[in-house]
Formats: sequence, C-alpha cells, structure tokens
Amino acid sequence: MSSSEFSIIDEFFSIQSAFDYPPVVGIGDDCAVLDVPSDKQLAVTTDTLVESVHFLPNSDPYLLGKKALAVNLSDLAAMGSVPAWVSLAITLPVIDKTWLSNFSRGLFELAGKHGVQLIGGDTTSGPLAITITAMGLLPKNKRLTRCGARVGDSIYVSGMIGNAGLGLEKAKAGSEDMSDRDVEAYLAPTPRVNLGCLLLGNATSCIDVSDGLSADLNHILKASGVGASIVNNDLPLTDSIRNHISSLSDELWPYSTGDDYELCFTLPNNMSTDFMRQLDGYDVTKIGCITEGSLLQIQLQNGEHVELNRGYDHFKV
Amino acid sequence: MSSSEFSIIDEFFSIQSAFDYPPVVGIGDDCAVLDVPSDKQLAVTTDTLVESVHFLPNSDPYLLGKKALAVNLSDLAAMGSVPAWVSLAITLPVIDKTWLSNFSRGLFELAGKHGVQLIGGDTTSGPLAITITAMGLLPKNKRLTRCGARVGDSIYVSGMIGNAGLGLEKAKAGSEDMSDRDVEAYLAPTPRVNLGCLLLGNATSCIDVSDGLSADLNHILKASGVGASIVNNDLPLTDSIRNHISSLSDELWPYSTGDDYELCFTLPNNMSTDFMRQLDGYDVTKIGCITEGSLLQIQLQNGEHVELNRGYDHFKV
Repeated sequence: MSSSEFSIIDEFFSIQSAFDYPPVVGIGDDCAVLDVPSDKQLAVTTDTLVESVHFLPNSDPYLLGKKALAVNLSDLAAMGSVPAWVSLAITLPVIDKTWLSNFSRGLFELAGKHGVQLIGGDTTSGPLAITITAMGLLPKNKRLTRCGARVGDSIYVSGMIGNAGLGLEKAKAGSEDMSDRDVEAYLAPTPRVNLGCLLLGNATSCIDVSDGLSADLNHILKASGVGASIVNNDLPLTDSIRNHISSLSDELWPYSTGDDYELCFTLPNNMSTDFMRQLDGYDVTKIGCITEGSLLQIQLQNGEHVELNRGYDHFKV
Repeated sequence: MSSSEFSIIDEFFSIQSAFDYPPVVGIGDDCAVLDVPSDKQLAVTTDTLVESVHFLPNSDPYLLGKKALAVNLSDLAAMGSVPAWVSLAITLPVIDKTWLSNFSRGLFELAGKHGVQLIGGDTTSGPLAITITAMGLLPKNKRLTRCGARVGDSIYVSGMIGNAGLGLEKAKAGSEDMSDRDVEAYLAPTPRVNLGCLLLGNATSCIDVSDGLSADLNHILKASGVGASIVNNDLPLTDSIRNHISSLSDELWPYSTGDDYELCFTLPNNMSTDFMRQLDGYDVTKIGCITEGSLLQIQLQNGEHVELNRGYDHFKV
C-alpha cells in the first residue's frame, strides 16, 4: 500500500470508525434488516433532488452523488445524530455506466467519510431524480429539535451564508470552477455532521439552512414560540457576497438564498467554558439572539429594523 | 358517531392495533425520530413509481396513493415484518389540491389498515414520481429471506398469478373497471402482510412476485443455490388468464408478467398440523418443489419440461 493510498483510506473510510453498524441483511433481498442498538434511537430523513429543479441539466455526476447524500446528512446533523445507513432511489432516463460509476464514486466517497453504509434502494427508468433516505443514530431520549429556543439564547450559524446562492447563479451562467468558493459551496456542500453531534445535548434548537436563513430561522421561531433579533453586520459573509450585495443594492439578499447546508442553532448564555472551547474548533458565528414575540427582526447598520420572512423558492433553479 | 363511521374506523384504523409505535418526533422537524423496541430489528425497503413507467398517465390518484404504499408493504411482507413507519417523497408537476387530497386519502386508508404511520418525507417539483421508504419491525434474529430454500421444500404462491399483467393491458386499452378482477389486481394490489407474518420462522424462503413469477422465483433459487420444478397445471389462474393464454397460444405467459405482489415461498414438508391449519386460512397454492441444481423447470401437461428465466421489463409500461 502506497502512502497516498493509505491517506485516501484514512481520509475517507476511517474518520468515524467506519461501518460501526453493518446491516444484518444489506442490498439484495426484499428489505434490508438493521439492528438499532438498544441504547439508541433512529433519526430518519428523506430528500429528493430533481434535474432542472434542484440541479442543472448535465451536472457532474460525481458531485451530484456527493450532494444527494450531503443534503440528507445535513438533516441528520441538524438533529444531532450520527449517520449510519442510507437507501438510494435513483430514476435514470438511460443506463449510462460512466455516469453511474461517477455518481456512485461521489456518493460512496462521502458515505465512507462518515461511516455510512448503503443498505438498499430502487433503480427505475424516467426523468433523472435522486431520493435518499438517510438513517442516523441518537442516544435514547436525546435529540436536537427546532422547538427549544428560549428568550435570551444566542443565535449562531456555521460557515458562511449566501455562497451557494451566488454559486448557483454562477453555475447557471456556465461556471464549473471548483476553485471559486461560491461555485464549490453550491456544487459540493459540506454537511456539518461533527458540529451537530457536539450540539446535541447543548444547543436548545437547531436546523440546517437549506431553504434560506430567514425561512429556516423562522421555522425555529415558530416551533419554539419565540422571536429573534439578528445583527446584520454580524452575518458571516465572504467578500464575493459583500460585492454581490453591493451590486444588487440589497443587503437582505443572503437571507433568502438557499442550499447553504450550514447549521443555524441557539445556545443558552451560560454554556460551560469547556463546551465553548470545543465550539471554537468549528467555524461558527454569533449573529443575534432570541427575543420575546414571534418576529424575525434584522438590525441594519443605519439603525433601521426590518422584519423578514422570506425563503428560497423550490420551484425554480 | 353513526354506525357507518364506526365501521370505517374499525375497518381501516384498528385492524392491527393501529400506531403501536408512534414516532418520538414525527413530521415537521429535520428528521423523524423513531424508537425501535429493544427486542426488535428494523426492516427497510424503498420503491419508486414513475408516471408512464410504473403507472399510466392520468392514473386515479386515490388508487395510486394506495398502490405506492402497497408495493412497499409487499416487500415488508416478504421479509415477514410488521409495517410500522413510512416516509414519502413525492415529485409533482403542479400543486393540484384535489389530486393530493385523493392521493393522500388512498395512502392513509391503506396505512391505517396496517397501523402504519407517515413520519416525514419531501415534496418537490418535477415529473410525477413517488418514492416510499417503508420500515417494519421484526423480532431480533428472525427474518424471512430468499436464501434458505432446501431441496425437497414445497413451493407456494399466494393468490392468483397473471391478473395484474392482464389488467395492465386492459388499463392501457382504457379500462378503469374495478369490478374486473384483472384491472383491480393491477390498480389495487393487496400486500400479503398477515401471510408474511405467519411465514416468519416457518418458511425457508420468501419473495414478493413483483417482477414476474419466473424472475422472482429465480432470485430465490440463486440466493439459495437450488433449482425448482413447477407443475404448470398447478399454477393458480383465473378463467380470464386461461382464456388470455389460449388466445396467445403461450402457456408460459403468466410466468413473465409483473405487478402481482403475491408472495412466493418455500416450506419444508414436515410442517406442523397446526401451522398448516393456519396456512389454510390464506389463499395459497402449492405449485412445485425445490430441486438440486440451479434450473427453473416448468413441467407442461404434455410431459415436456421447459427451462425458464424470464421477467418483467421495468423500462416499459
């Protein structure tokens, strides 16, 4: 084994002690059979990606395989669960072995990185679409939901906001340049699996930012029966996003773009030093706090407050 | 409550002490959270139905809702598991509330009948397709697989064979007459859930007949490393199928039609009288026996033996 092969295996297949939970029966029978450890609960999520709706025609199958899994792992992360198993339903217009080989390479690469095993699925003929059901494990009686945010909690997001939205615009204009951070954010989102696991038992609420920050934060507010005040200047933005905002003269643009797959979560203000030190290991930013009422208010630099409840429209690319 | 309302509730929502396993977190968060009892394993299956591939354009949404669930419950039945939870990913060209209302009525009607709860999913825009992931429960260390058939075992099928295949032909010709047994078999298959549960721990192998009897039985033969001899005269056929066979002059036609969703299973010959009495409560027919080798042989009435390995082509309606 060469050192480069070792590093690939190390990077992709051993990060979370891969395949801790092999299926009792995997692919090849009428069902998979899974043994959920008696001290665990199961978290289950399903997401579909449809060509020309969630991804552009002729998208790179390798990146698509990764992204189809990533968006599901992002939901598991938002629940604080450790990914374990996935089933894949893929609808294909034609059997294209090169396409399938690249798609599965992308999917298995990300799956291996998180110790996730493909346990079954369905392959059908029709317009290109991918539905993944991902299953993760949670300790009994623990979960990270949308409904526990309390007045005074701080609101955080991971990573940067808006890059995927701008990346989509660049991809629609023909760019596939993965060295462009915006394009990369759109085509290859990173599910925040380890951060979600750290937040479990600590954050009071959590959601993944897939439909746009304002729409997703509003889900937390509604489920928790609270409001929020966001300091617009504290939003984590790259220069490319700041430039885009300037060119649009719309400083609220990052709140309504989708596909970031970052985590938005709330923390009480009396978290332990030890926890905050662990959190420092992740790229997270405090952007505001939970308030009484039900409004999502954005504090602009000029002192104005804007009330916001906008999201991403799933019915367009 | 009128007596008719009571009978509807009784018929559809209490047959298997409905919702024995309510989700810890259901629809409305990033994931559902499920508590799998510590003495149980989870059986998981996924099936997609695509318009113009698995069902005709403009199909009745009520029947489609039922069938989308039925084909998944049929897989759970073939594993011997009790259905518990489903997630639904539905892709729709437009939001048609009447269509959705009828679709969900069909789905919930069958779900209620088997005590199955919808725990989440995804609704997307695009060409009409339905993917359901169904989860059922099995006692620890018990499952009904394809791989245990032994030489000398008897081969059985439930119900009748070929009606759904003929029903598809009638439906393509425009018939929606549900009083026609063939059309009904195609549009409204009945998953053999209770039979599957009876077979668990008794049958040596089991599969659901979705791709055609010869294709599906061949899966058992391959997985078990055995052959089979089928007595063609013993195949359970209705008069409509016998007439169809005559008109085609093709007595092997029923082996290659799909969509029956009956169970094909193998039993040792020393089953207890008690078990065989229970099995008498179901509509099952012995059609042959497991042999050495790997061939699927059909014994015709004229004494000929035909070797068969044909299935249903998923890439056409």
